[in-house]
Amino acid sequence: VNSQTTAAERLGQFVSTTGWAKIPPGVQHEAKRALLNIAGCAAGAAGDEAVAMAVQTLSPYSGPAACTLIGRRERVDAPTAAFINAVSGNLFDFDDTHFETGIHPSTTVAAAALALAEERGSSGAEVLRAIVLGVEVCCRIGAAVSPGHYRRGWHISATCGVFGAAAAGAALLGLDEVQASAALGLAASQSSGVVENLATAGKNLGVGNAARNGLLSAHLAQAGYTASPTAVEGAFGWARVMGDEFDLARLERGLGEAWEIRANAYKPYPCGYVLHGEIDACLQLRERVRADAIEAVTVRGNQLLLDRADRQVFSARDARVSLQHAAAVALLRGRAAPEDFEDSAVSDAGLARLRAKVTAEIAPGMPDSAAEVAVRMADGSTITAQVVHPRGSLESPLSDEDLTAKFRANLVGVRLGAPAEDLVIQLWRLDEASAAGAVIARLGQTD
Amino acid sequence: VNSQTTAAERLGQFVSTTGWAKIPPGVQHEAKRALLNIAGCAAGAAGDEAVAMAVQTLSPYSGPAACTLIGRRERVDAPTAAFINAVSGNLFDFDDTHFETGIHPSTTVAAAALALAEERGSSGAEVLRAIVLGVEVCCRIGAAVSPGHYRRGWHISATCGVFGAAAAGAALLGLDEVQASAALGLAASQSSGVVENLATAGKNLGVGNAARNGLLSAHLAQAGYTASPTAVEGAFGWARVMGDEFDLARLERGLGEAWEIRANAYKPYPCGYVLHGEIDACLQLRERVRADAIEAVTVRGNQLLLDRADRQVFSARDARVSLQHAAAVALLRGRAAPEDFEDSAVSDAGLARLRAKVTAEIAPGMPDSAAEVAVRMADGSTITAQVVHPRGSLESPLSDEDLTAKFRANLVGVRLGAPAEDLVIQLWRLDEASAAGAVIARLGQTD
Repeated sequence: VNSQTTAAERLGQFVSTTGWAKIPPGVQHEAKRALLNIAGCAAGAAGDEAVAMAVQTLSPYSGPAACTLIGRRERVDAPTAAFINAVSGNLFDFDDTHFETGIHPSTTVAAAALALAEERGSSGAEVLRAIVLGVEVCCRIGAAVSPGHYRRGWHISATCGVFGAAAAGAALLGLDEVQASAALGLAASQSSGVVENLATAGKNLGVGNAARNGLLSAHLAQAGYTASPTAVEGAFGWARVMGDEFDLARLERGLGEAWEIRANAYKPYPCGYVLHGEIDACLQLRERVRADAIEAVTVRGNQLLLDRADRQVFSARDARVSLQHAAAVALLRGRAAPEDFEDSAVSDAGLARLRAKVTAEIAPGMPDSAAEVAVRMADGSTITAQVVHPRGSLESPLSDEDLTAKFRANLVGVRLGAPAEDLVIQLWRLDEASAAGAVIARLGQTD
Repeated sequence: VNSQTTAAERLGQFVSTTGWAKIPPGVQHEAKRALLNIAGCAAGAAGDEAVAMAVQTLSPYSGPAACTLIGRRERVDAPTAAFINAVSGNLFDFDDTHFETGIHPSTTVAAAALALAEERGSSGAEVLRAIVLGVEVCCRIGAAVSPGHYRRGWHISATCGVFGAAAAGAALLGLDEVQASAALGLAASQSSGVVENLATAGKNLGVGNAARNGLLSAHLAQAGYTASPTAVEGAFGWARVMGDEFDLARLERGLGEAWEIRANAYKPYPCGYVLHGEIDACLQLRERVRADAIEAVTVRGNQLLLDRADRQVFSARDARVSLQHAAAVALLRGRAAPEDFEDSAVSDAGLARLRAKVTAEIAPGMPDSAAEVAVRMADGSTITAQVVHPRGSLESPLSDEDLTAKFRANLVGVRLGAPAEDLVIQLWRLDEASAAGAVIARLGQTD
């Protein structure tokens, strides 16, 4: 590695020179897992009013309707599709998580890649290559400014997502090294999104713009737009202006050998990750107790769990970050599916009764994501279960079958262009498709 | 002022409750000056390849072509017009400057306002009101984070421009207080642009996105999108995440009484502001000397002038920040017009000979923007001239006639939808127009 090479040059070169065949089979397969996951998340959230409002606002300004909105009937142009699909993919934070950085990487990257591929008639392998490379760029840039960047208050999925979307666009457009580097440098001028707005629709704009503007960065670089080679790490470049030192060594370490998409995890439950250990413990307990005989539930975890999730529930948003609601759902229904965190579940009387019996207790030594749940029964007995590595953690990853089941669960009540079982087959075989657009179009709604 | 009111709430309320009649006549008039200035700048730069590339890339993704691109033949939808007109308006930094902050405020604001007004059939007074209020919001938010924000490396015209464009959109859409505040909060998640990219096309993306995304913030707020009330100044909000303390007192001081647009200055010459004192001095000297008898030119100024502008000239970009070129042009041609800073001027033999005779000398005590020029003649005599407040400074503002002349100079070689003399009349009377669109459409090219 030439120490004079800048981050944008290094990553631009990597993107432009890394063909599908250079990507190891296990990594290729991971791209299919990431896509299946994000497609289901987008389809499941596509009916939400936050998505509907964005479609209503943006679709009058769409050019030719070449692209599918996952889970919706409307078709729009590629930049608008990138925006909307990123919004729906990330809306419930049910998309994948790159633990080192806290980035949800596949959403912005896949939203840009799917839109461009459908517009251009790219192959399935080209889409998957774009996802692998986009996730790689997004997560490496994010890792080079972690953990300070997110802690400071930047919504890292958006601020780094724009680089990933630019890389995906560069890959699919076949940009050369110089153009691909320029695309990444142009992304540096389009990076935005603040944590203060995360609990509002403002979150959607950051993520949507990341996908759209990253895609346009690649187009503009192809048209001849240039950027400063040091746009990412220069004295007045992205990282420093945003408040971070840039760790070029982390950016480059193992590039082309260690793949960030393999450090990506998929959530089994559509709620805050801190609740997943607790849910797994409750699901174990449910095998052993009758919910209507429960007198009290005590959830033990570390300060992070209590800070983030010890709360009463007044809305679906609350439910997704409430340890009371998570325990009630898992103990009463034996699952934690998307509909278990919707308004109907919030107002369900049985869940409300059980939620009222749940209290939290600090367990200082417990690792992040671990939880212990104790259930006191009507007969005075107490049963406990503890989980250290919840399902979906890197230590206990979801299987392909789990991801297929998650996809189906996300599609409950959503009617797409093909039955879920057919879509599953087509997505698992996307690398064999000569035109990805035929598969992508079926992710839209037909009635 | 209620101390519990946030920045977005305070400014949103101001925008929604300040009608045209509440704006003093002198401020109303200033909006016409700002618009005449920016319309000419955009028309003059619209043929540049940086604009052409953006049009080529974005116009295939435009919806119905309701809006004019100033100085160009293509028509596009409102968000795309906002983007492109902001790019051309700011391209040569010939647009207005708010000295306290360094913001070029009218470009992003007017680009959003013109696009929306043409699409919606708004009146001329509504456009001018949107410009006044957009500039007010943009500059007050900028002032509340100055001087740290720009110094840190944020391209302040873009990062604050998105708030101004959102305010202009809110004004034209007639948003209520709550919606207008939300529009500003949504802008906080869409603020971007870094100084590292200022010498590249990356600058254009920051400015273009500010206009486009600000406009869309207003639309989304109208559709029901909300933002955190503390999106601007909260612990994880725009100002702090970007590295700045937020001076709420400066934001609010004199709101509705002291108008930021009156602290706005217009450049008479299409080059770095630091060169303007030198040019004025050279224009004085030219009345007294024959250029072909000049043996040497010494330009004296403070360190800022020398740091920014003591440079040889290889391109039009260099010419716009070269004190050598500025002196040669003013002494030889007796003016400093747009064509005097183009490639043809860079390669002009006479200018090159005179440039080679120009040297810079430090004059430590001299104020910013002042300059002294000494010309040594073939007969051994030396003549000097000094300027402290150059034309276009707040102390020596351009007159309405000067702005009219600047508009005409920007239009040399550009054929718009009406002769320049007619456009001048229509723009000076824009407040009387029941539909601004008829005037705006004539700012497009017709052949």
